[in-house]
Amino acid sequence: MNTDKKNIDDFINNNLEKKVVVVQGLGFVGAVMSLVCANALTEEYAVIGVDLPNKQSLEKINKINSGIFPLESSDPKIQLFYQNSLDKKNFYATYDEYAYSKADVIIVDINLDVQKISVNFGDLESYDVTLDPFKKAINSIALNCKEEVLILVETTVPPGTCKKVVYPIIKDVFDSRNFDIGKVSIGHSYERVMPGPNYIDSIQNFYRVYSGIDEMSSKKTEDFLKTIIKTDEYPLTKLHSTNSTEMAKVLENSFRAMNIAFVVEWSRFAEEAGVNFYEIIDAIRMRPTHKNIMYPGIGVGGYCLTKDPLLASWSRKNLFNGDGILKQSEMGVRINDKMPSYAISFLKANLLAQKIKLKNVALLGVSYRSDVGDTRYSPVENFYLQLQNFTEKIYLTDPYVKYWDEIQKEIILDFKKVLSKSLDSVIITTSHSEYRSSKILLDLLMNRLLLAYRLNVRLLYLY
Amino acid sequence: MNTDKKNIDDFINNNLEKKVVVVQGLGFVGAVMSLVCANALTEEYAVIGVDLPNKQSLEKINKINSGIFPLESSDPKIQLFYQNSLDKKNFYATYDEYAYSKADVIIVDINLDVQKISVNFGDLESYDVTLDPFKKAINSIALNCKEEVLILVETTVPPGTCKKVVYPIIKDVFDSRNFDIGKVSIGHSYERVMPGPNYIDSIQNFYRVYSGIDEMSSKKTEDFLKTIIKTDEYPLTKLHSTNSTEMAKVLENSFRAMNIAFVVEWSRFAEEAGVNFYEIIDAIRMRPTHKNIMYPGIGVGGYCLTKDPLLASWSRKNLFNGDGILKQSEMGVRINDKMPSYAISFLKANLLAQKIKLKNVALLGVSYRSDVGDTRYSPVENFYLQLQNFTEKIYLTDPYVKYWDEIQKEIILDFKKVLSKSLDSVIITTSHSEYRSSKILLDLLMNRLLLAYRLNVRLLYLY
Repeated sequence: MNTDKKNIDDFINNNLEKKVVVVQGLGFVGAVMSLVCANALTEEYAVIGVDLPNKQSLEKINKINSGIFPLESSDPKIQLFYQNSLDKKNFYATYDEYAYSKADVIIVDINLDVQKISVNFGDLESYDVTLDPFKKAINSIALNCKEEVLILVETTVPPGTCKKVVYPIIKDVFDSRNFDIGKVSIGHSYERVMPGPNYIDSIQNFYRVYSGIDEMSSKKTEDFLKTIIKTDEYPLTKLHSTNSTEMAKVLENSFRAMNIAFVVEWSRFAEEAGVNFYEIIDAIRMRPTHKNIMYPGIGVGGYCLTKDPLLASWSRKNLFNGDGILKQSEMGVRINDKMPSYAISFLKANLLAQKIKLKNVALLGVSYRSDVGDTRYSPVENFYLQLQNFTEKIYLTDPYVKYWDEIQKEIILDFKKVLSKSLDSVIITTSHSEYRSSKILLDLLMNRLLLAYRLNVRLLYLY
Repeated sequence: MNTDKKNIDDFINNNLEKKVVVVQGLGFVGAVMSLVCANALTEEYAVIGVDLPNKQSLEKINKINSGIFPLESSDPKIQLFYQNSLDKKNFYATYDEYAYSKADVIIVDINLDVQKISVNFGDLESYDVTLDPFKKAINSIALNCKEEVLILVETTVPPGTCKKVVYPIIKDVFDSRNFDIGKVSIGHSYERVMPGPNYIDSIQNFYRVYSGIDEMSSKKTEDFLKTIIKTDEYPLTKLHSTNSTEMAKVLENSFRAMNIAFVVEWSRFAEEAGVNFYEIIDAIRMRPTHKNIMYPGIGVGGYCLTKDPLLASWSRKNLFNGDGILKQSEMGVRINDKMPSYAISFLKANLLAQKIKLKNVALLGVSYRSDVGDTRYSPVENFYLQLQNFTEKIYLTDPYVKYWDEIQKEIILDFKKVLSKSLDSVIITTSHSEYRSSKILLDLLMNRLLLAYRLNVRLLYLY
């Protein structure tokens, strides 16, 4: 592997007197976090995004450096912020760990995955958390960083990770480098990024919780966050332990995941009782204490809600030797994972019985959530795979997804092109605004040609 | 048993030209519902409250008829509304089913219980729903009522009850009475009563959901509700089936119960990780989507949250032959039921180890919820029973409970009298406002003499 040292040095030389922020990981969080740092509110940063030297990441890195932002988004601020960074020449991307040596702040935005073992399209049998790639990433920072750097972990981690995993790694490496471990700062502040029309605002204009492994770390984290977030409008909340902030993050997502699972279970009961579940939920939402009650959909997807409750439960058992698992949160994941399979059973039972054909079907939307192009753990994947068994042809369309990585398929962006095919059924699998506001789809609904309508609107909206 | 026929006839004769509302059941809902009807907004009703001729109910009936409202309450409107009804002489109470024969509207506000079989103070082993007392009550209405009455069920029932239980009973009896079943109206509209400082408002000034077994029933229910509820400010929501409204009620309470169980499980994890769970919850509540996340406490009590999820799950299995139970909602009850036992273990593990004495202990609050005098299924009961095993003397106090029925004990109303005793520990078991605003208790807290403080505030507030 060649080094990128010269380019990094050039970039730093062109941005003299700017503090350097290095973002580790250029995924859905890191890429946009980089933009927010390059457009900081009260400071001019030189921002370097670092990702692994594999094919997919190298493509991303090359795009960033050649004037193309690698994520599709419905948020116009993304392009605006990216263009600013091009104009100011303060954003560079690289695969080279040498970048860490230049950093005043290193933001950890890499993934930390849960390995799920599932059978029958979503029936969770077991799971495990492998910390190795995360540990390796922290190790590469420790090996290259300056002594007085602030390492700010944003990755969603099992509670306890900063103290029990990150700190020991850095301490070991610092000892071997003859660095003073007392000089490094380790902070934790989790993102609440929502890819979609408010992508940038979900970082820059939103509440944040933070902590540090000691007072200095906490203070440095606070000072840094104040330069990139509108903290006068969205005040920061300081917690007194990294265990607390790490727990808060997975708790938030578990709360959501469990509340979806809750309505899923009740929606089955509603179907058995022959009542309109959406009408019931709307009635209950009138109560201020019940405003947050959710709607069911065909499934829960994305990178967070599908795994965060398991990260927590795993941590309770493995990092804190706790008295059992988080039963209710794990059950939430189990119920949600089976949603697409249930949608398929529902289809089979209710539609095939009515002799509605499913020969040529169009699925509108493949991403996991409305108005985003993120297909990671999309419930549409399991739905699609199972639907193949009793259809001849499935047309896939999504305005935000050109290529569906997980299925390795080109996706038609314009749903109208799909509607022009000879179709038996159209199923709205993701509730993109474009579909919800479409006159054509509304007509199909009214004429009851749109399958979603017949599916008790279960398939019309994802949660 | 003597009849009360003459008194009822006299009451009706003194209230000629008023429509007659009979409320079946004079418990925490029925007694106050009677007051709201006697103080209706757009109509003058003559209201008769009916309860069973047992010792406890007869005491209540006698009190109502002799100028004493039988419920302790922190809501000043209760006394005001009751005084109005005394002035207008439009509220009478009786044990005599003859009252139903006078009714234009009969409101069913009796209990429908779940029999739980628990071991080890709260470990739910099994449960069952016995409909017999409810069926008997409906039967006595059917035997006595007029043909064109509106029967409005407010009781929290297993979904399906109006159609599968109430209607068949009334039809059978009407057939035998040569009444036209087509003339009776059966509506369902569940209350959202909150005993406490807004007791009356939780009926008169709050959102309502309603339905009827047919269009006429639905319309009559709506018309009636409009006379007692401020529907211009709190519009009614009509659902299209009694199954739906019945389900909505138990769903609402299951949602709450499960969300408490959720934080309970996480609070255990927080203790294991040595972090302040309340700090975490406060941080998360900053998010508008997470505002409703709850605090844990020593337990969940009261008549609704402890059983409603089971009513629903039972109904799914037994009335609709559904595909399984409502697992997550049942688990919520299971987790919550064990909370007092957990609080005891926590006490033992953390306090006895620190050699804090529990010889003479005061429990502040015995009701299940702040600022109410309702002790039904109060978690303090299980807590108290277990605490007895390793204390010599437990003083009990509660400003709203003169006599604790379940434990058969006199309760000291003024907590200051209890504090004057020689005490080792004081535990706030119910978060009555009086305690929260007390300077004396605050001083105890600051001097760390108040056990609640040492218990990671777990015992300071009920949810």
